[in-house]
Amino acid sequence: MRRAVCLLSGGMDSSTCLAYARRQGFACYALSFDYGQRHRYELEAAARVAKALGAVEHKVLRIDLRSFGGSALTSDIAVPKDRDETDMGSGIPVTYVPARNTIFLSLALAWAEVLGAADLFIGVNAIDYSGYPDCRPEFIAAFETMANLATKAGVEGQAFLKIHTPLIHLSKAGITQLARELGLDCGLTFTCYDPVDGARPCGKCDACQLRLKGFAEAGIQDPLVYAD
Amino acid sequence: MRRAVCLLSGGMDSSTCLAYARRQGFACYALSFDYGQRHRYELEAAARVAKALGAVEHKVLRIDLRSFGGSALTSDIAVPKDRDETDMGSGIPVTYVPARNTIFLSLALAWAEVLGAADLFIGVNAIDYSGYPDCRPEFIAAFETMANLATKAGVEGQAFLKIHTPLIHLSKAGITQLARELGLDCGLTFTCYDPVDGARPCGKCDACQLRLKGFAEAGIQDPLVYAD
Repeated sequence: MRRAVCLLSGGMDSSTCLAYARRQGFACYALSFDYGQRHRYELEAAARVAKALGAVEHKVLRIDLRSFGGSALTSDIAVPKDRDETDMGSGIPVTYVPARNTIFLSLALAWAEVLGAADLFIGVNAIDYSGYPDCRPEFIAAFETMANLATKAGVEGQAFLKIHTPLIHLSKAGITQLARELGLDCGLTFTCYDPVDGARPCGKCDACQLRLKGFAEAGIQDPLVYAD
Repeated sequence: MRRAVCLLSGGMDSSTCLAYARRQGFACYALSFDYGQRHRYELEAAARVAKALGAVEHKVLRIDLRSFGGSALTSDIAVPKDRDETDMGSGIPVTYVPARNTIFLSLALAWAEVLGAADLFIGVNAIDYSGYPDCRPEFIAAFETMANLATKAGVEGQAFLKIHTPLIHLSKAGITQLARELGLDCGLTFTCYDPVDGARPCGKCDACQLRLKGFAEAGIQDPLVYAD
């Protein structure tokens, strides 16, 4: 069975992406990061999802991105609440974590090379939330080119490394529908940037609002219980 | 003064690269990694060098690359000793750490974005030691392209991020000469992959042999005291 490294935050998108990779027949090695995020609770969701979806292995790697700061998720900047779609569409939000996907993909690349895996999966999405520069297709394509020069594959002519982004052109409603088709139990996932009491989704941050919008537009009930 | 993030292992190459960046007039933010390397002693050299060269700040970030393994530097694979130039020229050595420079540059990119720095320095060298895929000019160029799409700069049209590799086309002798011209005290640096008693350079691993070759060809005495 072909091996794939799958980035897994524990949210809807990365969990759906992992379910997709499993359905494609890959033996999946799930990789999560304890990077100093204020919503560290998502790591428990990642562990639940990795187990439920039959990942061969689930690693949680620690990297202290609080050491750099520069984001509402990794410093004491407040997480914005109750923003409307116009707000969300205007510029890069303060929840952007500098170079996060570059860092995560780099570490996934290291693990893939050790495993002899030529496939990486990442649940980035450029449609309903294009505020993050490192969720865009042109970034993914450039990373793939770089990755194939960075590793043994680039020198020894081994299997070309492919970065799979099955959600990149889906709407949030489309992702919710895909999750249902793949049989993902969305109650295992966790999306909120700023959970109440560290565990209950707030329902007001951008991540919660986009998740709720996706479920509403897909006509599916979100199994999570929100603080409000 | 323009800010630059400078990768600093504590070895000759990265220390010379930092000295070069300082001479170019940059305010330097030095970045080192405690990544589970067996030659962790190099971090003490990095701290000495950062201080001696007047870095504004020196950060040491911990990432557990032993979690992935796959290299003599991050697992229990033995470090090769007494290899000759023919051995060194044939294929990628077991001291190659999968995706290491990609990971290090990604984290440097994150710090640069937070600092508002548009310049990264890395002391890679493709001449006397071309065994590592992530030391090649084509890798650096691809990383630079990717980095400019990964960050706010790519979306908001800020300053183009430049990766400087002043040593890339120098021989080891050339690097030794450059270090002298820049006034670097090479006695502060540390190069060995497998130090004896954790602190004395072995003189036999590839890194020691290449360092000694560089000093010999430059006609300069290496101030380090070797185990043998």
